[in-house]
Amino acid sequence: MFVEEIATHNSAESCWLIIDGKVYDLTDFLDEHPGGKKIILKHAGTDATAEFDKFHPRDTLNFLAPECCIGEVEDPENLPQTEEEEVVDDSTEEERVAEEARLDRIAHKPDLSKIINLYDFEAVARTTMDPNGFAYYSSGTEDEITLRENHNAFKRVYFNPRVLVDVTDVDQTTTMLGSPAATPLYISATAMGKIGHEDGELALARAAGTTGIIQMVPNLGLFGFDEIVDAAQPDQPLWFQLYVNRNKEIVKRIVRAAETRGVKALFVTVDAPHVGKREKDMRSKFLAGRSDSDDNGNHGDGDKKTSALIDTALTWKDVAWFRSITSMKIVLKGIQTVQDAVLAVQHHADGIVISNHGGRQLETVRAPIEVLADVNAYFKQHPEILAGKQFEMFIDGGVRRGSDVLKAICLGARGVGLGRALLYAMAGYGQEGVEKAVAILKDEIVMCMRLLGVTSLNQLDESYVDLAALKGGRGSSGGALFDNVYEPMGVVKFKARL
Amino acid sequence: MFVEEIATHNSAESCWLIIDGKVYDLTDFLDEHPGGKKIILKHAGTDATAEFDKFHPRDTLNFLAPECCIGEVEDPENLPQTEEEEVVDDSTEEERVAEEARLDRIAHKPDLSKIINLYDFEAVARTTMDPNGFAYYSSGTEDEITLRENHNAFKRVYFNPRVLVDVTDVDQTTTMLGSPAATPLYISATAMGKIGHEDGELALARAAGTTGIIQMVPNLGLFGFDEIVDAAQPDQPLWFQLYVNRNKEIVKRIVRAAETRGVKALFVTVDAPHVGKREKDMRSKFLAGRSDSDDNGNHGDGDKKTSALIDTALTWKDVAWFRSITSMKIVLKGIQTVQDAVLAVQHHADGIVISNHGGRQLETVRAPIEVLADVNAYFKQHPEILAGKQFEMFIDGGVRRGSDVLKAICLGARGVGLGRALLYAMAGYGQEGVEKAVAILKDEIVMCMRLLGVTSLNQLDESYVDLAALKGGRGSSGGALFDNVYEPMGVVKFKARL
Amino acid sequence: MFVEEIATHNSAESCWLIIDGKVYDLTDFLDEHPGGKKIILKHAGTDATAEFDKFHPRDTLNFLAPECCIGEVEDPENLPQTEEEEVVDDSTEEERVAEEARLDRIAHKPDLSKIINLYDFEAVARTTMDPNGFAYYSSGTEDEITLRENHNAFKRVYFNPRVLVDVTDVDQTTTMLGSPAATPLYISATAMGKIGHEDGELALARAAGTTGIIQMVPNLGLFGFDEIVDAAQPDQPLWFQLYVNRNKEIVKRIVRAAETRGVKALFVTVDAPHVGKREKDMRSKFLAGRSDSDDNGNHGDGDKKTSALIDTALTWKDVAWFRSITSMKIVLKGIQTVQDAVLAVQHHADGIVISNHGGRQLETVRAPIEVLADVNAYFKQHPEILAGKQFEMFIDGGVRRGSDVLKAICLGARGVGLGRALLYAMAGYGQEGVEKAVAILKDEIVMCMRLLGVTSLNQLDESYVDLAALKGGRGSSGGALFDNVYEPMGVVKFKARL
Amino acid sequence: MFVEEIATHNSAESCWLIIDGKVYDLTDFLDEHPGGKKIILKHAGTDATAEFDKFHPRDTLNFLAPECCIGEVEDPENLPQTEEEEVVDDSTEEERVAEEARLDRIAHKPDLSKIINLYDFEAVARTTMDPNGFAYYSSGTEDEITLRENHNAFKRVYFNPRVLVDVTDVDQTTTMLGSPAATPLYISATAMGKIGHEDGELALARAAGTTGIIQMVPNLGLFGFDEIVDAAQPDQPLWFQLYVNRNKEIVKRIVRAAETRGVKALFVTVDAPHVGKREKDMRSKFLAGRSDSDDNGNHGDGDKKTSALIDTALTWKDVAWFRSITSMKIVLKGIQTVQDAVLAVQHHADGIVISNHGGRQLETVRAPIEVLADVNAYFKQHPEILAGKQFEMFIDGGVRRGSDVLKAICLGARGVGLGRALLYAMAGYGQEGVEKAVAILKDEIVMCMRLLGVTSLNQLDESYVDLAALKGGRGSSGGALFDNVYEPMGVVKFKARL
Repeated sequence: MFVEEIATHNSAESCWLIIDGKVYDLTDFLDEHPGGKKIILKHAGTDATAEFDKFHPRDTLNFLAPECCIGEVEDPENLPQTEEEEVVDDSTEEERVAEEARLDRIAHKPDLSKIINLYDFEAVARTTMDPNGFAYYSSGTEDEITLRENHNAFKRVYFNPRVLVDVTDVDQTTTMLGSPAATPLYISATAMGKIGHEDGELALARAAGTTGIIQMVPNLGLFGFDEIVDAAQPDQPLWFQLYVNRNKEIVKRIVRAAETRGVKALFVTVDAPHVGKREKDMRSKFLAGRSDSDDNGNHGDGDKKTSALIDTALTWKDVAWFRSITSMKIVLKGIQTVQDAVLAVQHHADGIVISNHGGRQLETVRAPIEVLADVNAYFKQHPEILAGKQFEMFIDGGVRRGSDVLKAICLGARGVGLGRALLYAMAGYGQEGVEKAVAILKDEIVMCMRLLGVTSLNQLDESYVDLAALKGGRGSSGGALFDNVYEPMGVVKFKARL
Repeated sequence: MFVEEIATHNSAESCWLIIDGKVYDLTDFLDEHPGGKKIILKHAGTDATAEFDKFHPRDTLNFLAPECCIGEVEDPENLPQTEEEEVVDDSTEEERVAEEARLDRIAHKPDLSKIINLYDFEAVARTTMDPNGFAYYSSGTEDEITLRENHNAFKRVYFNPRVLVDVTDVDQTTTMLGSPAATPLYISATAMGKIGHEDGELALARAAGTTGIIQMVPNLGLFGFDEIVDAAQPDQPLWFQLYVNRNKEIVKRIVRAAETRGVKALFVTVDAPHVGKREKDMRSKFLAGRSDSDDNGNHGDGDKKTSALIDTALTWKDVAWFRSITSMKIVLKGIQTVQDAVLAVQHHADGIVISNHGGRQLETVRAPIEVLADVNAYFKQHPEILAGKQFEMFIDGGVRRGSDVLKAICLGARGVGLGRALLYAMAGYGQEGVEKAVAILKDEIVMCMRLLGVTSLNQLDESYVDLAALKGGRGSSGGALFDNVYEPMGVVKFKARL
Repeated sequence: MFVEEIATHNSAESCWLIIDGKVYDLTDFLDEHPGGKKIILKHAGTDATAEFDKFHPRDTLNFLAPECCIGEVEDPENLPQTEEEEVVDDSTEEERVAEEARLDRIAHKPDLSKIINLYDFEAVARTTMDPNGFAYYSSGTEDEITLRENHNAFKRVYFNPRVLVDVTDVDQTTTMLGSPAATPLYISATAMGKIGHEDGELALARAAGTTGIIQMVPNLGLFGFDEIVDAAQPDQPLWFQLYVNRNKEIVKRIVRAAETRGVKALFVTVDAPHVGKREKDMRSKFLAGRSDSDDNGNHGDGDKKTSALIDTALTWKDVAWFRSITSMKIVLKGIQTVQDAVLAVQHHADGIVISNHGGRQLETVRAPIEVLADVNAYFKQHPEILAGKQFEMFIDGGVRRGSDVLKAICLGARGVGLGRALLYAMAGYGQEGVEKAVAILKDEIVMCMRLLGVTSLNQLDESYVDLAALKGGRGSSGGALFDNVYEPMGVVKFKARL
Repeated sequence: MFVEEIATHNSAESCWLIIDGKVYDLTDFLDEHPGGKKIILKHAGTDATAEFDKFHPRDTLNFLAPECCIGEVEDPENLPQTEEEEVVDDSTEEERVAEEARLDRIAHKPDLSKIINLYDFEAVARTTMDPNGFAYYSSGTEDEITLRENHNAFKRVYFNPRVLVDVTDVDQTTTMLGSPAATPLYISATAMGKIGHEDGELALARAAGTTGIIQMVPNLGLFGFDEIVDAAQPDQPLWFQLYVNRNKEIVKRIVRAAETRGVKALFVTVDAPHVGKREKDMRSKFLAGRSDSDDNGNHGDGDKKTSALIDTALTWKDVAWFRSITSMKIVLKGIQTVQDAVLAVQHHADGIVISNHGGRQLETVRAPIEVLADVNAYFKQHPEILAGKQFEMFIDGGVRRGSDVLKAICLGARGVGLGRALLYAMAGYGQEGVEKAVAILKDEIVMCMRLLGVTSLNQLDESYVDLAALKGGRGSSGGALFDNVYEPMGVVKFKARL
């Protein structure tokens, strides 16, 4: 295909793009693009490679139906020299002052040695990251009630510590889904690691290796899957998180690629048939060019707001299908009720993640630690359900302290995932930051085990926690420091005075 | 009658007014005027048409007993030329500065495209509306505890979302009282729409038409009933809200007029035998000229503070009487207990609105969502009560999110009314604002249904909500954004320093 | 006795004072003086009439044992001309600025017509009263947790309003202890009315007369008992509050005097065998000259801190003794448990006031409305206790709204006392202020009764209130306006910089 | 040994120090030093006497294994004259301003006579103490949730006061573990008293003597054990708190020394096998020179963070061992569950202290008053456990009011310990401050007993308290003044701008 011809396919009726010398017909994909069709149409008929690379790793193209790739550019020499887009600084005076203050803060960033807890990382990231990037990382759905509740609920679980136990030798190692782990933590999959730090997911992979914890590789990182696996140590256990594409052939390809690279477990995301309403993010300019939010708007056609990237028709029967295409462990990520936890067992999943997607999907759902308490109690009352089964439970969301981790273990979790908390560490200090964060958590866990009077994780059970305050006063209490570093919600801004 | 004679009836002993060329004897009506007798007496014996039109649609005169109209002016040429009342600017320096700031905010009002939730509309209305108008709209009774509780209670209802359900096709349409609706929302009747926007109730009617939702036409709008009906599309379903006049002939006339214009259902207001104490409104100057609050005061004679416009003697037996005069559906608006919900069924009402009048009547009553939960549980425990009956329940008060709507549906509501929230949208952006507000809610509802794992409203029931936190800690929690845009109560102001 | 001789009795060993020409030997009384011995000793051996009159009505002298009065001054002409004590202004710059601002606020005090609720009165009093006087009125014991809880607990009682009841004619009159009352309110006894307004208790008595409510005449007013009775209308029902003196003869004299003047009921204070620790008051300078708090201090000898004025040995058997000396109704003021309520019935009291002395005595006791709910439930469960008895229950503390009053009636109270709330009204506006306050409450009560669907007080019972939130989250919620006008607690101040 | 030789042992491989003329080989002790090895290595090979004395009493050396002392300096004349270390003022401008303000506050410190409650002492200490010292005293573990909860829980216990009881003579004396006490308070053991006031633990001992209360002598004071005992009056009852050294011979020596000096009871600390994470303290510079926190860090090796000073292998069987070496009463300090309270009885302890170490050890454990309520209820339900036993329960943590003390007595405590509260009194005003604090508490206790209607402590039981609000809303409520003087948590600081 020739540049001249390609250039004519520059509209919603027929929309071709050149990426890395190949030509893609994205006409049918326009409505399914998570970033909106506007940004694609802006580049229709041209070479979009540079813009594409800003927001996607190359292997994102694997998510497209194969027939989208319709050929190669035969006369690349005729491609117009991409002119440096003239950057017009349209920031207001207020924004310029804020940006200067931010750069000053970066220059005075605390030394890593001064960081003593995970809130410190958040405090640094909040004030030194690009505000749009921070909005993307930190935002939750709607009023962020669930986002805050995720953490606050941990603080309403109280410990019953035992004394006069020999706690000289404390062991926090464990295995999760058969793989060894230095501590019952894992790095949960999060998108867009690169906007916090240039090493992004690679830094996470490397820190997981040095600290002996497991990383769940994200489906939507800004590095490609293989790049991330390459960054890991040869024997480092990895998991893979999957958004299930509507096209099952694509899914099969991706899953098998992961298995081939030695991934131990497949975490199928089940809580995202629709994208949550993350208002801080919507308000930020981050997605400005990529968002349709300021279109003249097809509001009320919400049912259009899904994507081929996520199969809204995914059901329980698909668990068997996944089993048929892979021998990796299969874990369902995003369970939020006792009923679905039981169904997961009945459909032979190897485990579940009790999670509300970090408070980014449905608003006013309960904190994972609270749901876990219910599920755990139900399984204890009905031992026949799990009898003779290998079934592991995980939670994620709001974890900031070693004590949070141990509370989950007391209530039946095998391990606990951290997402944002480690992104914040990475944003400020890269791989080293993540390592320090894990080290802090390990220290807190040892201290906490000693003071609870236990020497290994399997000694922990419900008797070590008091749940009287867990249900009830939701919304108020909470940890002083968590509230301290929380960025309050805002409402719409009036126009700038010029 | 001649102008000269009319002019002599200018006192409380005999009080005549000219409106639109007709002469009314309002002597007996003085004590019943909702706006107080002072303002009527100010115009006694003269042509009050211009002043009347500021605060009433012409058809308000239908509420008067027919015998009040005692004749016509036979010599209109002798009416004194109404002199433009010389406006004395008696505002303080502080008020002038505030007004300038308000005009500046209006000039910098955010584009409608930037509005992403209903709190944004409130934030805009709060800071750009005339303060007295906003006080009228926003005020609740006494300490506004119930006003805030109405919303906050929704935030204490948590969801139990289900996963791995095919949610590709989600349908939020429904029928309410036999009429189709694009979503289980309706515009609740509110007075004085015109003070927020010149199109007032007409804008609401038009937006209801374009978005496919039902409007409950208010009894006390600043546009006349016929004007509002004319603004609706020919087949657009409408409901009618009624304050029951002490004079049953007037009621009959009004009800039959509504039925004639095709109104589908009559919502009889039952929670207003006395006007609530809305203190923000009392403090504002809005009703300055119309209020008796700075009289030397008949305080302690509270029993005088009712009006012929509202029959304090309305009782359960009147439900049958309404049935005898109309074939419209009959719904009782303002039920707040299980007992009265049961009585409504027993008296053959077609439905009820569980409502506390938006927190404007009795202080410290429970939020509608909480009362609904009780009523729903009671009906489930006593299925014989509703057996074989068509009976629909609605709630209004504090609704700001699609999730609020669905929580009500889970607990047995057929639909949910919005009042203030849409007035705020209208105040800032007219019909378009209301359309945008409805579109936002529809989007939120679709998202919320997908993330709950349902595809139609009738799949929702109590199992989708967790009520553990609903009762208990009333008063504290609440949505961040709701608190963010709430105008705190104030106390009496000291005199201005000159 | 001659001036020269008297002057020699000027020490703690022998301490005489001249008041109004009579000589008193106060040597034994020094330790029992509520205002401390220091102020007495300052005037020992001299004519203290002027100083005495500042803080006591003349009939306070009746509380002294008769033998204290040891004679008359025989040579009054030799009394030194009391020199105007030279007032040294030792106020700091900060205090002078504050005082000027206060005087400016007094000059701009809102017109009475602008006052719309009882919080307004408090807001005015708080900022215009002498700070020391306001500290005396407003202070509660220790952290003022109970003081605030008294009011906040009302706000955790929710109403269950009924509709479609004929509420045209609403009647809030009642009888209390056999006397008619225009509304179920009474003015509770409070000390030191004169420091808020020069008319003090007289203003209260007059306002009670004009508004038809009952006044409980205080034992420690700054006007004498007879003066107050004289200010009342001839047929105006009065009650009398009594601190029980250790000397029973004095008690008998006082009680019989009250009965002679037609007082209907005697309220025996039972919750004050020790004075509460009112820290705002302690910090204020009000008692500066009268307080021993900056003595070198007998701290730890707390058992000395009682007074002949209050008999610490008062017990249940004394109820029969009171019955033996008077035919007035006998009510025990300050009951705080179910057990003591039952004992009161068993000891044939005519009634009780469930009260914690306005939060001025023991800290962290429960609000009267909560204790009332318990007592009422207990009596309902054990109907035999009250069978065939006339027994009336009252509560006081934290009442600010008509709805507060009705909640108490729902829970079995016959009437409700107001103390501080009316003092604040009086402080700002004298008798008229009190009348306005009562009028506001009456208006609120009528509104509230109509909106509850009742027409007389005896229709109210427990079914009209929801108590689910009453117990539990104590301390947080509360009325917006109450918090708005609350003066927060402070800690010790550092010395002024000169 | 000669100075020249000693000087060569100046590394982690071989580390000798001279203290008071003796030579110690601390090579094996380096990792066990609570203050970190860095500070020891800094002085390795030299005379560290001056530095040692800043942070330890001389008898700290008793905690070392005897074989550490390897000889004496034979040529002290060759010791280099310790040059005054040149103090480099490296404080920032911000710090200098803060320090000047602090010195100004010290100059204007309130007179002791103005102090009316224990919060006042905290307010003074907080703003006049060296910030690092205050951080050491005031800090709790992690988010300080438990630290605050300790106090706040008291405020959720409400009283049920009884009336008409003869309370003329009130007696607050008691015995604790057989020793008489003027009031049911004791001074709990706290470390580092000298950093608040130069008299440190001696001031506490003297004030205990004058006020008739018992002092628990700390194991880690900055004065030596004998010095403290010498400061006490001859017959003054003393207790001794013990951190159990890994070397049982050392323990035996210390315990017997205490018994020899007449100590009545041994309080064995059981809640400190690992040091809590006190973040305010970590952030302060107090331990700057002594802390390893800014090392390049062996984080994740938390199991190294214990010390020979505290035996992590201490178990229940050791209770019998203590019994075998001493005839003092044996009390276990730091019990936090019903189970361990029962075990304590079964292992024949004479008592327990229900304590969470003032919120300094494990975060999110319950307040002692709440645990006490559970233990007390359990013992009441199982009377056989304590039948025929002498077993006394104590609590400490968060006590600030006489009412707090009495609430504990109601729930079965024999006495109540105060730690920080008295340190704050001492920091501002030395021995006199402590005496005043005790006097205030005694006054509050007398008042509170009178107003509860009791005359001796043994009349108090569960019927005097209402626990409905104790469990539940943890975290929010709390005393106004406690929150008022609380120093909020901070996060990491950015670098200073030069």
